[in-house]
Amino acid sequence: MPRSNAEPTMARGARRQPGARLLQYRVLPPERAATMQKFKTIAIVGVGLLGGSVGLAARRRRLAREVIGIGRRSSTLAKAKSCGAINRGTTSLVRGVADADLIVVATPLDLVADSIAEAAEAARPGALITDVGSTKSDILNALKGRIPRGVHFIGSHPLAGGTLGGPEHARADLFEGRPIVVTPTRTTNAEQKRRLCEFWRALGGRVLEMTARRHDEAVATTSHLTHLVASALAAATGENDLPLASTGWLDTTRVAGGNIDMWQAIIATNRTAIAKSLARYEKTIGTLRRAVERGDQGRVGRILSEAKRKRDVVGS
Amino acid sequence: MPRSNAEPTMARGARRQPGARLLQYRVLPPERAATMQKFKTIAIVGVGLLGGSVGLAARRRRLAREVIGIGRRSSTLAKAKSCGAINRGTTSLVRGVADADLIVVATPLDLVADSIAEAAEAARPGALITDVGSTKSDILNALKGRIPRGVHFIGSHPLAGGTLGGPEHARADLFEGRPIVVTPTRTTNAEQKRRLCEFWRALGGRVLEMTARRHDEAVATTSHLTHLVASALAAATGENDLPLASTGWLDTTRVAGGNIDMWQAIIATNRTAIAKSLARYEKTIGTLRRAVERGDQGRVGRILSEAKRKRDVVGS
Repeated sequence: MPRSNAEPTMARGARRQPGARLLQYRVLPPERAATMQKFKTIAIVGVGLLGGSVGLAARRRRLAREVIGIGRRSSTLAKAKSCGAINRGTTSLVRGVADADLIVVATPLDLVADSIAEAAEAARPGALITDVGSTKSDILNALKGRIPRGVHFIGSHPLAGGTLGGPEHARADLFEGRPIVVTPTRTTNAEQKRRLCEFWRALGGRVLEMTARRHDEAVATTSHLTHLVASALAAATGENDLPLASTGWLDTTRVAGGNIDMWQAIIATNRTAIAKSLARYEKTIGTLRRAVERGDQGRVGRILSEAKRKRDVVGS
Repeated sequence: MPRSNAEPTMARGARRQPGARLLQYRVLPPERAATMQKFKTIAIVGVGLLGGSVGLAARRRRLAREVIGIGRRSSTLAKAKSCGAINRGTTSLVRGVADADLIVVATPLDLVADSIAEAAEAARPGALITDVGSTKSDILNALKGRIPRGVHFIGSHPLAGGTLGGPEHARADLFEGRPIVVTPTRTTNAEQKRRLCEFWRALGGRVLEMTARRHDEAVATTSHLTHLVASALAAATGENDLPLASTGWLDTTRVAGGNIDMWQAIIATNRTAIAKSLARYEKTIGTLRRAVERGDQGRVGRILSEAKRKRDVVGS
C-alpha cells in the first residue's frame, strides 16, 4: 500500500475515472504533525480495542492535554487507565464529554448513533465529534435532526482492528499506515474536517475522504463480502474434509473465526450494498463453475489472472 | 490439528459416519522412527521446493545412505546439491533411478504420470515409487498397464508447500505436522504401503490413507475450491475499492497471488469434483445473498456460526 507523504495522490491501483477523486488521500508530513493544532481534551466513548488504541496513540503523540475515557463498566475504565490509554475514566457520558473539544465514539456499531446524539447534546459549542463505526450511512440517517447547532459531527472509519477486543489489546501503532475513511457531507464545516483529517494523519493513518454511501459500497466488498465469502467456504467444507485443510484454507477462512454478533450488526446496517456485492460475486463463482465444467481453461485462466493482478496491486 | 502419537485415531472434527474410516491416520512414534527400515538409495525426480524438501528432510533424518536428484537442468541439480538436498544429481532419469529402492516423483503435475512410468520402466525389481502430485485419480488412470510387475507404485500427496519454488527454498521441516495423504488401491502391496507411510511419518507428516477418488473430492473443497473462492473475491473487487482492502481481504485473497500455471494444471485434472464443490459453494453464497436481502438475521447467523465452528475446529 502506498505510504507517500506527498500532497494528494491517487491510491495505487485506482484508475483515473469518474468518482476516483473520492479516493484521493494525503498522509500528513511529519513536520506538520508536530505543529498541528492540538486538542485540549479528547473524550473517548467506549474504550475497547479501537477506543483504547485512539487514546494510547493520542497520548503517545501528545495530541491532547487530557484523554478522558467513558464506559459502562468501571472495570474496563480501570484497565484502560492502567494500560495508559486514558488519563481518567467516568461512567457518565454527560460529564465525560462536557469539556472535550474532540469526542471519539467507539461503542459497538448498534449503539454508535445514540452515543453520538447523547454526546452532541452534552458537548460544548465548537466541539468536534467523530466515530469509528464500520458502516456510515445508517449512522448519518439515524442522526438526522439530532446534532445541535454549533456542534460538529463527521464520521470516520479506521480500517484497523484485531481479533482480540478490550483496552488490554490496544496498541499505539494500530492506525499506522492503515486506511482511515472520513465521510463529510454537504453541510460539513471545512475547518473541522481539516482538523479531523489532521488528527487521524497524526495517528499514522492514510486518510481517504468519500461520501458515507461510497464508503459503504466499497467496504461492502472489501470487508463485508470478504467475511461472507470466507464464512461460506468454511460452512461449505464437509466435516470429513476438514483434516485435509491446509494453509490455503486456513488463510482464506481466517476471518470466519471472528465475533459473530459484531458481524451480524455490521451486515444489518449495510444490507443493500452487501446483497449487491454478493450478487456480483455469485456471478463470478457461477462463471468459474461453468468454465470448470466445460474445461474452458482460457476462461478460468483469465479470472485467475485478473485476481492475481488485483491481489498483487494491494500487496501483503 | 491433532498430533497424537497413538495408534489409529479419528481426526478432530471427523464424525463417526460411513467413510470416516478412511480419515484414520497414525503419527509414527519417535522410537519407531528411529528403528524404521531405512532405504539404501532414494531417487528424487524433480528437485524443486517439494522434491528438495524430501531430500533435505530424508538426509537430515538419515533415512537413506544416498539421495540422488534427477532433473532436466544441471543448474537446478547444482543448487539442490549445494543446499544439501541431494548427495548427487543427474539429468538421466534411467541412470538416476536404476539403483533406488525408493523413488519420489516431484515433477510438475502434468508431467507426473509420464515421469512415474519412465521411472518404473528403469527401476529395479522391488523398488517403491511414489509421487507428490496434488490430484491422484488422473495419475492412476494414466498409469493403467504402465507399471511393470515387481515394481510398486503408491500415490502420495503431502499438503505442504510455499509461495516460493525451487530447491533453494526447500526446508527440512516442510512436512512436520502436515497432513500427507497416501492413496493405496485394491492391488497395493501391504508391506510396501507400510514402508511408504513409515517414510512420511519419519519426515514428520500425519499420514492419512484414503482412495485417490476420496482424496480428490476432499481437496476439491479444501484446496481447489479455496483457490477459486479467493480468486473470485479478488477478481470481483472493484478497482476503485482496492484502497479500502484491509487485513481481512488480504488474508482471504492471499492464495490468489499464487502461480497461475500450476493452478490451471491442478484444476484441469480434477474438474468434476471441483465443479461439484463450486456448485455447493454457489448455493451457500446464494442462500446468504437472499438472507441478507430479506434481512433474515437468523439465517445469516446460522451460517456464520457453522463456519466459525468448523474454522475453530481446524485451528490456526
